[in-house]
Amino acid sequence: MHDSPIYFADDLSAMRHALALAEGAIGLSDPNPRVGCVIVATDGRLLGSGHTQAAGAAHAEVMALRDAQARGADLQGVLMRGATAFVTLEPCSHHGRTPPCCEALIGAGLARVVAAIEDPNPQVAGQGMARLAAAGLQTSVGLLADEARELNIGFFSRMQTGLPFVRMKIAASMDGRTALLNGRSQWITGSPARSDGHAWRRRAGAILTGIGTLRDDNPRLDVRLVPTALQPLRVVIDSRLETPVDAQVLAPPGEVLIYCAIDPQTQAPHAQALRAGGATLIEIAGAKAKVDLAGVLRDLGTRGVNELHIEAGHKLNGSLLREGLVDELLVYMAPKLLGPGLEMAALGPFESLQEVQSWRWLDCSMIGEDLRLRARPRRD
Amino acid sequence: MHDSPIYFADDLSAMRHALALAEGAIGLSDPNPRVGCVIVATDGRLLGSGHTQAAGAAHAEVMALRDAQARGADLQGVLMRGATAFVTLEPCSHHGRTPPCCEALIGAGLARVVAAIEDPNPQVAGQGMARLAAAGLQTSVGLLADEARELNIGFFSRMQTGLPFVRMKIAASMDGRTALLNGRSQWITGSPARSDGHAWRRRAGAILTGIGTLRDDNPRLDVRLVPTALQPLRVVIDSRLETPVDAQVLAPPGEVLIYCAIDPQTQAPHAQALRAGGATLIEIAGAKAKVDLAGVLRDLGTRGVNELHIEAGHKLNGSLLREGLVDELLVYMAPKLLGPGLEMAALGPFESLQEVQSWRWLDCSMIGEDLRLRARPRRD
Repeated sequence: MHDSPIYFADDLSAMRHALALAEGAIGLSDPNPRVGCVIVATDGRLLGSGHTQAAGAAHAEVMALRDAQARGADLQGVLMRGATAFVTLEPCSHHGRTPPCCEALIGAGLARVVAAIEDPNPQVAGQGMARLAAAGLQTSVGLLADEARELNIGFFSRMQTGLPFVRMKIAASMDGRTALLNGRSQWITGSPARSDGHAWRRRAGAILTGIGTLRDDNPRLDVRLVPTALQPLRVVIDSRLETPVDAQVLAPPGEVLIYCAIDPQTQAPHAQALRAGGATLIEIAGAKAKVDLAGVLRDLGTRGVNELHIEAGHKLNGSLLREGLVDELLVYMAPKLLGPGLEMAALGPFESLQEVQSWRWLDCSMIGEDLRLRARPRRD
Repeated sequence: MHDSPIYFADDLSAMRHALALAEGAIGLSDPNPRVGCVIVATDGRLLGSGHTQAAGAAHAEVMALRDAQARGADLQGVLMRGATAFVTLEPCSHHGRTPPCCEALIGAGLARVVAAIEDPNPQVAGQGMARLAAAGLQTSVGLLADEARELNIGFFSRMQTGLPFVRMKIAASMDGRTALLNGRSQWITGSPARSDGHAWRRRAGAILTGIGTLRDDNPRLDVRLVPTALQPLRVVIDSRLETPVDAQVLAPPGEVLIYCAIDPQTQAPHAQALRAGGATLIEIAGAKAKVDLAGVLRDLGTRGVNELHIEAGHKLNGSLLREGLVDELLVYMAPKLLGPGLEMAALGPFESLQEVQSWRWLDCSMIGEDLRLRARPRRD
């Protein structure tokens, strides 16, 4: 052991450390949850730690055991005897792409496992803790559960509802405009807000926009301003299959999904060109020759998208909001007054204040010279 | 001395205490500045403290000396020998409605006076500190100067420019709407935000609105939701002198100013009825048969208004903003999406983002379920 040892005063501080480590799995472990694990000796000393790697590679528990070995701990040896694993999500008990973590923890000779929260995956859902208890380990669940759920809010959403957690990003002035009447919007917010926006893109399994924004802004929809190991899926809502073949969204490597409301065969040459450009075309028709947005979310859920990041215009924003499909608003608000211009979302007109969309503020931070406001649907 | 004694560890904590006391003069001392004073013995013990009373009554320094006497300190006696007065604004040296505070401090036998900031009043402006120094007291100026200026931001504005500090209050949704298209706006924000708005009204020497808001909302423009010793002046911008005689703004006791752009004699019976209702009518005509808003601010400055609180509609808000007359935006933002509706301020349309109004965020707080955002003009 080269480094000077780290000691934890109590379970809470060990779990906090595991949660901080779990953030290292953002932009890496999707569609698997972000999990951190620390293994702590009876005297409070940190023996090993780690977080989930890319899908198919090691989970947090195995990374922590390997780290302990690398630091000189003898598995099944003196240090491990009586040790506790703090893990931010219940260890898996099933054989997926990797062997179950429960068996690794049992095999290492640990005495106790503390999990922040039960795994919502129906293949786990308490069976992991039961397996550990059956093997004679002390177990407990619930320490910093809210923080652990928040870190994997998309994974919990997908496991519990089949749908991704939908976060809608909007950059606006304080009078609620996203562009001038002439469409100019570059840049309402500053460079730190744009980088922060990419940090939220990085959390997402997919970034979604509409054909209107594709035409007006020709976005790339990738993660550029912050480092990432994974690039999210890029998704376009394009009812009539009008995405230009030279759209920038087709340029970066990786998969692009284009959801349309028509049979791509009716546009065979264009469809073929889009496919050649790397796009997968998916017909999910809803009412009025539009794409069925709820159907898109279900489809993205089956594709393993935990968090879905929306960057669209007022029309698509309005449709998603009217249908109640948005779980979080992420608003970068510049200290500017734009006067007449494009609105955040096409909604209403409403006749009474009882009809309007009510949310609750989650938090507010300064990002450079702009404010970042987050809101979630009000449930009452 | 009945209470257990309070000790200050250093000058900074004594001045902080004086600033906290000075807040007690809000809603009381206008048009005089809000000043706090603490007198501290050589061993750090608090001997006496106080803040400015109503105009014409005692200033902070005299209140603190009286408090010291009431607590048993013998002026000119042992305790006062070597003592320091911490005062949040330079003590006055001139005979106003009260005798100069400098003489009171000198007469009490103090050894040192620490002022947070120099008095911007040209009748004082350093002469107070000079008088104290000439009498042999140690003096210093500048401790917590920014905080002291902020507390009296309106007094500094009026002394330095002749104009009040203008704060514009707006209640809006997160998409920047102040009412639905049908005009409904009660209530976009919650009861805590409305009470907080009254706490800001209470700071003001005058509350101003326009004839449009008077007709639509018939506001009282008084301070009701928080206690206050003073009620601000009520001010209406009413170019054609159309304020109804039964407007609620005329109901509360106290003075009402109605600024118009026509000679009240041309509307003699109506003007007479408004005067009988307690209003003072003032003609300050500007361009296009409108009231000259800069002229109104100058007039309010001569009337001793330090902070001017604006609660108006989008037209008057737009005019004040276009003319650069607003020093602070105070926005209560509800977590709601209203869709089409009334805007915060009639501005633009702008052709480029370089033309739009740029501000800087000052702070952001949760007030009940709403956000309170404050912004000031960007100077760069």
